[in-house]
Amino acid sequence: MSLTDNPAEAAAAGEVELAALAAQLPAGALLTDPDLLAGYRQDWARDPDAGTPLAVVRATCTADVQTVLRWASARRVPVVPRGAGSSLSGGSTAVDGGITLSTERMREVVVDPVTRVAVAQPGALNVEVKAAAAAHGLWYPPDPSSFEICSIGGNAATNAGGLCCVKYGVTTDYVLGMEVVLADGTAVRLGGPRLKDVAGLSLTKLFVGSEGTLGVITELTLRLLPAPPVGSTLVATFASIEAAAKAVVSCTARVRPSMLELMDNGSINAVEDMISMGLDRDAGALLLARSDAPAPAAEAELELVRESCVANGADEIYLTSDPDEGEAFAVARRAAFPAMERRGALLLEDVGVPVPELPTLVRGVREIATAQDTEIVVVAHAGDGNTHPIIAYPPGDAAAEARARIAFGEVMDLALSLGGTITGEHGVGRLKAPWLPAQLGPEVMALTRRIKDALDPLGILNPGVVLSPTRT
Amino acid sequence: MSLTDNPAEAAAAGEVELAALAAQLPAGALLTDPDLLAGYRQDWARDPDAGTPLAVVRATCTADVQTVLRWASARRVPVVPRGAGSSLSGGSTAVDGGITLSTERMREVVVDPVTRVAVAQPGALNVEVKAAAAAHGLWYPPDPSSFEICSIGGNAATNAGGLCCVKYGVTTDYVLGMEVVLADGTAVRLGGPRLKDVAGLSLTKLFVGSEGTLGVITELTLRLLPAPPVGSTLVATFASIEAAAKAVVSCTARVRPSMLELMDNGSINAVEDMISMGLDRDAGALLLARSDAPAPAAEAELELVRESCVANGADEIYLTSDPDEGEAFAVARRAAFPAMERRGALLLEDVGVPVPELPTLVRGVREIATAQDTEIVVVAHAGDGNTHPIIAYPPGDAAAEARARIAFGEVMDLALSLGGTITGEHGVGRLKAPWLPAQLGPEVMALTRRIKDALDPLGILNPGVVLSPTRT
Repeated sequence: MSLTDNPAEAAAAGEVELAALAAQLPAGALLTDPDLLAGYRQDWARDPDAGTPLAVVRATCTADVQTVLRWASARRVPVVPRGAGSSLSGGSTAVDGGITLSTERMREVVVDPVTRVAVAQPGALNVEVKAAAAAHGLWYPPDPSSFEICSIGGNAATNAGGLCCVKYGVTTDYVLGMEVVLADGTAVRLGGPRLKDVAGLSLTKLFVGSEGTLGVITELTLRLLPAPPVGSTLVATFASIEAAAKAVVSCTARVRPSMLELMDNGSINAVEDMISMGLDRDAGALLLARSDAPAPAAEAELELVRESCVANGADEIYLTSDPDEGEAFAVARRAAFPAMERRGALLLEDVGVPVPELPTLVRGVREIATAQDTEIVVVAHAGDGNTHPIIAYPPGDAAAEARARIAFGEVMDLALSLGGTITGEHGVGRLKAPWLPAQLGPEVMALTRRIKDALDPLGILNPGVVLSPTRT
Repeated sequence: MSLTDNPAEAAAAGEVELAALAAQLPAGALLTDPDLLAGYRQDWARDPDAGTPLAVVRATCTADVQTVLRWASARRVPVVPRGAGSSLSGGSTAVDGGITLSTERMREVVVDPVTRVAVAQPGALNVEVKAAAAAHGLWYPPDPSSFEICSIGGNAATNAGGLCCVKYGVTTDYVLGMEVVLADGTAVRLGGPRLKDVAGLSLTKLFVGSEGTLGVITELTLRLLPAPPVGSTLVATFASIEAAAKAVVSCTARVRPSMLELMDNGSINAVEDMISMGLDRDAGALLLARSDAPAPAAEAELELVRESCVANGADEIYLTSDPDEGEAFAVARRAAFPAMERRGALLLEDVGVPVPELPTLVRGVREIATAQDTEIVVVAHAGDGNTHPIIAYPPGDAAAEARARIAFGEVMDLALSLGGTITGEHGVGRLKAPWLPAQLGPEVMALTRRIKDALDPLGILNPGVVLSPTRT
């Protein structure tokens, strides 16, 4: 997608001009030290094929982002936008000869408690937005498990989800407006602090989830809610994950819990190995539900969840209205990924299916694990049908890694065969781009390409993400 | 935007080919009888400048829609998609020499109660979708005041709102997927029955709210929720609408009511004239709040609303847990538009502002009414900052109509000056297209044009809606 198809040539051509770029940026904003660049090659997807950027620019303001994009457009140099680098699908993996444009220094969050919005720069962490809102008794709901380390700009770029999304929706539901810099360096303001606004095309929503392929978000106007009650938490164990999944289908027809998470036996044991909190290691599955309805109503809602668990053969059911105890279970659920990191190298899946297909998906994932002789544990935002099979293999074992990668693809194929999606909340990134055409089909891929070409005619924005670099 | 800039020539050229189009459609699908066409010229915006279509096609299926668009693309004939014709901004106003493509015969709704989605054809009425869901104990939330007569396809095309949106969001929050026919006749499927899905660009969300300018929606996959509790209702009267608006700002910081509507003295009296239900004709404003939290929690939520009303000087506060009584107040609120129709010809506004600006907006609207010597009453989805000033004038009085139209524009200018929007839920249509550039600015208009041109390069889809027909 760069001026030349040869990355080395592109890099050489770019280097000549780097001094001109640095001169237009604040001192220290542009990095070329190889030791520093190395830290920007990969993100959490740990793509072994990550490139090395020509330079990293740590933008301090919108004007810096515009400067980089004008410079890059003039030279057809690829630009990879990067927030906190916590992408699990390679959405901020560096490309050879490109500029990695980091927003890590754009961290300001300003809350207007009367209008109830937060205006955040993209590099602010999700947890920082939550804290700024909480200081005014307000709440920013979306809560990726990585909320303490992921950036709000990355959240918007991937339309990130989380645990409370089963009731409160995903990032796009909270983005009222944004400033975004287009490929040619033009900065535009979309939407604003208005709760309902249908003036013109839904451009704000188009940029949310576009993974840095249509523009670089430089500011977000986020809707805040009044802080909800703390709520109560229910934990149920089941002999099988299928039974737990059936309880999910049953209870979500009657009630809207504010959290409905699933852990299989493997993830229970991995977490228990790490944080030893007395989870039942013999359980086939653990279901974690929360209601944040005001006090007596929370118990009433969880009673409906309890009935669904009993009807589907739950072994033990535990209910607590103690917030710390309830949060401890949520922490355990979020710990599945770091716990599995102790077991080996990981490939983290993010497939989703219509909720009734959950049992079939989970059974199929187990069959894939057996067939490929690889370890796969499953945690899921079960109420949304969004699962995270975590594939672990011994690092350095090439044969095991090859089997793990086959399993990774087979899990996506399985989800698609069940009417599902290859990604529920992590994004397509570079890692899943090869599977996207199988989900969308040629007409929708062509439609996607038309929009990409209209907004980024030179193809400089995050090439290889979402759309494969070669046109098909 | 048609082959020739002369509508008469375009019409003549089109007529020659109409027989060829009719031959590809089911018998009776294509109408050319002038008496029948007359009924398709205007929508509820009653645009006096509405054109006369060359023909009306009442499509029976996706293939019919494809046939029309292929035919129209080949001849550059404008196509105006039309659902129930209840647009309040002229989104389905006919254009001379164009085809009006009606979906009124595509009415099927199929509910999958396990996956909890409704698959609806675009001509189904909103009330029919609600009823189909309710038959399974499920709920389709978005509830425009016109829900008994507006089509679900039109709802999606305009991203329609309604009364419950203050808690449950607008149409886009419930559209999981769609089939849409592009300008060239290609049918594509976007999204599907998955609650979370970030595979590829957010194309579904781009088409929602695109007002028929990017494609014609032929099927919708809609998210359904478990039916909520009936809830309780609070009615409070205030000496002034400013006081009521301040109560809105105050209570929404603490609680999320499922309805929070405002009526001013004028709308109270207009409704009372029509349905005589004992509303306080002397009240400066009436606030209508509902909580649908489970029983004891509903009272607790409304207690917080009550406190905000008292703190802002409410005169009388009435609370009922009787669902029929509560609904009677909602019916009164929805009756404002038909009640005002008895007072004269109407121009219905739809401006929105950040919630704290509500008092300023309402005061400014009153000043505009005085200055232009025209009657304006205000009802509002107050919790969203979305207001509907209703401008009435004696039909046939040209001077009064001219003043009303000046007021219509001044209300939009006022909203923009307060950081607001010219349309919160009705859409831009043809009526508000001239004001859109003032809200979006030249860069966003240019961005809009790039997307329009990428998806509808011949400009045949609903020309003059959202974007003015002439390029500026």
